[in-house]
Amino acid sequence: MVQHSPTYAITIRLRYADAPGAMGHITTAIGEADGAIGAVDIVNIAGHRISRDFTVNAKDVDHGKQIVERLRKLDDVEVVHVSDRVFLMHLGGKIEVISKTPIKTRDDLSMAYTPGVARVCKSIEADPEASFALTIRQNTVAVVSDGSAVLGLGNIGPRAAMPVMEGKAMLFKEFADVDAFPICLDTQDTDEIVAIVRNLAPTFGGVNLEDISAPRCIEIEKRLDAELEIPVFHDDQHGTAIVVLAGLKNSLRRVNKNMSDVRVVINGAGAAGTAICQLLITSGVENIIVCDRNGALHRREPEADPTKQWLAENTNPEAVAGPLSRAIQGADVFIGVSGANTLAVEDVQNMSTDPIVFALANPDPEIDPSLAEPYARIIATGRSDFPNQINNVLCFPGLFRGVLDVRATTINTEMKIAAAEAIAAVIPPSDLLDDYIIPSVFDRRVAKVVASAVSAAAIESGVARRKAKAAYSLE
Amino acid sequence: MVQHSPTYAITIRLRYADAPGAMGHITTAIGEADGAIGAVDIVNIAGHRISRDFTVNAKDVDHGKQIVERLRKLDDVEVVHVSDRVFLMHLGGKIEVISKTPIKTRDDLSMAYTPGVARVCKSIEADPEASFALTIRQNTVAVVSDGSAVLGLGNIGPRAAMPVMEGKAMLFKEFADVDAFPICLDTQDTDEIVAIVRNLAPTFGGVNLEDISAPRCIEIEKRLDAELEIPVFHDDQHGTAIVVLAGLKNSLRRVNKNMSDVRVVINGAGAAGTAICQLLITSGVENIIVCDRNGALHRREPEADPTKQWLAENTNPEAVAGPLSRAIQGADVFIGVSGANTLAVEDVQNMSTDPIVFALANPDPEIDPSLAEPYARIIATGRSDFPNQINNVLCFPGLFRGVLDVRATTINTEMKIAAAEAIAAVIPPSDLLDDYIIPSVFDRRVAKVVASAVSAAAIESGVARRKAKAAYSLE
Repeated sequence: MVQHSPTYAITIRLRYADAPGAMGHITTAIGEADGAIGAVDIVNIAGHRISRDFTVNAKDVDHGKQIVERLRKLDDVEVVHVSDRVFLMHLGGKIEVISKTPIKTRDDLSMAYTPGVARVCKSIEADPEASFALTIRQNTVAVVSDGSAVLGLGNIGPRAAMPVMEGKAMLFKEFADVDAFPICLDTQDTDEIVAIVRNLAPTFGGVNLEDISAPRCIEIEKRLDAELEIPVFHDDQHGTAIVVLAGLKNSLRRVNKNMSDVRVVINGAGAAGTAICQLLITSGVENIIVCDRNGALHRREPEADPTKQWLAENTNPEAVAGPLSRAIQGADVFIGVSGANTLAVEDVQNMSTDPIVFALANPDPEIDPSLAEPYARIIATGRSDFPNQINNVLCFPGLFRGVLDVRATTINTEMKIAAAEAIAAVIPPSDLLDDYIIPSVFDRRVAKVVASAVSAAAIESGVARRKAKAAYSLE
Repeated sequence: MVQHSPTYAITIRLRYADAPGAMGHITTAIGEADGAIGAVDIVNIAGHRISRDFTVNAKDVDHGKQIVERLRKLDDVEVVHVSDRVFLMHLGGKIEVISKTPIKTRDDLSMAYTPGVARVCKSIEADPEASFALTIRQNTVAVVSDGSAVLGLGNIGPRAAMPVMEGKAMLFKEFADVDAFPICLDTQDTDEIVAIVRNLAPTFGGVNLEDISAPRCIEIEKRLDAELEIPVFHDDQHGTAIVVLAGLKNSLRRVNKNMSDVRVVINGAGAAGTAICQLLITSGVENIIVCDRNGALHRREPEADPTKQWLAENTNPEAVAGPLSRAIQGADVFIGVSGANTLAVEDVQNMSTDPIVFALANPDPEIDPSLAEPYARIIATGRSDFPNQINNVLCFPGLFRGVLDVRATTINTEMKIAAAEAIAAVIPPSDLLDDYIIPSVFDRRVAKVVASAVSAAAIESGVARRKAKAAYSLE
């Protein structure tokens, strides 16, 4: 069922005679056109005529136009202007770069810029690691994309990808006070992307790769993380894997099963599926079957793609062959990172007791939750309009907060598992419900506990930089 | 004479018995050590002991230490902590990235990020120029450096260059509400820099190149500006040239001379000297002699460097040869973009009537202004502690404001001259003085008039993008 959404909100400016009943006339018309009225603001009153802005949630773009058409038919009501709320919010971009201290006087200028800045430059020249204390590197992450695999939109290019990366930067700031800056690159060549990001490193404390298509994203991340003094993290792989692991931990608590005992079927052998599989193996899951479009990967059938070959060799201990509908038989957990409607109702019926279904394809999941609901014990999706939303926002802000706080050089498996455990532990076992196995994206505790857990894991695993002495003190 | 400066400010935290006379005791000691006391703040009072922060301007780092040593000798006064104000200001960097709108609710999230953002992405995919309206490109400039020629510090590398680029970003925001982001690159290879900046272009509305050594900076700027859909501007060249032209215009008004009649000697044939020379030629100066370390460039002596060869062929109509001391004889204007103490007092004495001396080497000018003062009619420097400061801050914020406002594709000569004329015209001819030929860097009118002049020149010269219709309206 299509619902009214702020995604399709419009603001309609109407001018009309300010007589008794006029407002009712208008709101009735909006209601007749099935529009959901939000705010109503007075713009101005001139003579006997009043201008008001009506903000109305529609169901889609065409529905918005129908509402406006309905209003145009009203006598003595003039449609002055219609604006699209989402586009208005994007006008001029969604983020800005500001100074932490104002430059109002010569003294300000001589401390923040020449000549005072020269002493700071020299001290970094003498000790390049001081750049992590004395520049924005201390708190700044690059959000890098080439626009090749953006949301469900595909290869829309770097210019069109910018609004997503700006949105990501907003989330970094909002949830973890991390300064993030979007970098959309006009190349989709692996070597060029590696060379560029490598050369951008002196500006940043970390790199969040985003919406880069597989298999390039895997190679790009691996090469950069090995070469650079700062961590490089492909969120679509590892962010997803971390939140899935968190949700799975809590789900298994609900059904009283152990990681080592369950059989997990992952549908989708792309970057996310591979990262999930690897993190689950590290977390003690022993029986995983990964399926791609051609069915279950298994060791008896060689794969051309090296990642798939690795999966075929390192999963599926019983070497189950055949389509997903075969692999899913008797499975405890289904994790879909594939496409809409790839899981049938019968597949869920054929799972083990208390089936756990993570149908994460966006915007349309592998199975409609209302169809799975009678048979699955626990259902999670990527959507905000169902319970149990598996959303990377639960991970990346706190993760990078923790990374920056201890100046970690990389994000290792220990840190990823620590992040997953921290997310899961936000809900005490006694509070867990089948439709509450993962915290809300707006649960402000999440980023804080993830940050501390990640910092601690970085220190413990020896990838945190430590400074014995602050560089700024004369003492 | 070395002066007290906020560049060398320290904050000393002292704890002592809060008795009558104690404060006088301390301030007297600071005075005896020749420290200039600024703010004094109470930190806390515990029992009979008080902690106060004394902020003191020193003359240099050693002088700061001497002041602290003097205080350590006081009985019953404990030096708790000493901090360096400039380093404190740099801790964690000087800029931050913030959201223009908060993300507090699911509705906010669904408009700024998924799913609402998808419609905005699609509309940019359909019309890439919409990225100038719907992303930060509308207001954002990259400040790009490779750290190869930073201030007077030389090739200190990208990490150490960051504080300067952050400072530049602060000035962009403070003076013209331009969002600027520092990008310090870990390569000094011309081809690599060109490739990187080319690929960064989808994120930005303009590129300010900064502190890149000659002659690479000239090639990098030329290639990028030709290739890109956004303007690329090397501030050390053109920013300097524009402000010099502004100062020269007003100086010539003071001495009643014309551009076409004066003889100008430029000392320094690097990137800045060349840009100044070219802009002066375009502005009608017919007689320019450019000197490098070996003396005057002239057409009878071929130069290996192509830029110098161009200067030799296109300046010095009388083909004057020999050292600067020869070229300067009878000149009306000296413009130094070279090094300290390269202009002798006798050189100024040998100039024409009403000599104009722009001694712009930083931090030490080509001639000490106090030595030139008896003979020169007008003296300008790059320093803030003398009158007539030629400072690029007068140009770049307003220039890029004007560029972004009309979405210019390049910064052409018309726009540069318009900027120079706007800066000069901030001081009405009747208000001009020999020591007031250029506005103060804190004159808030400057950026505004520069922006309008540059926008108008961009439109007139046909390099402004125009949108017939706003992309966000449904009408």
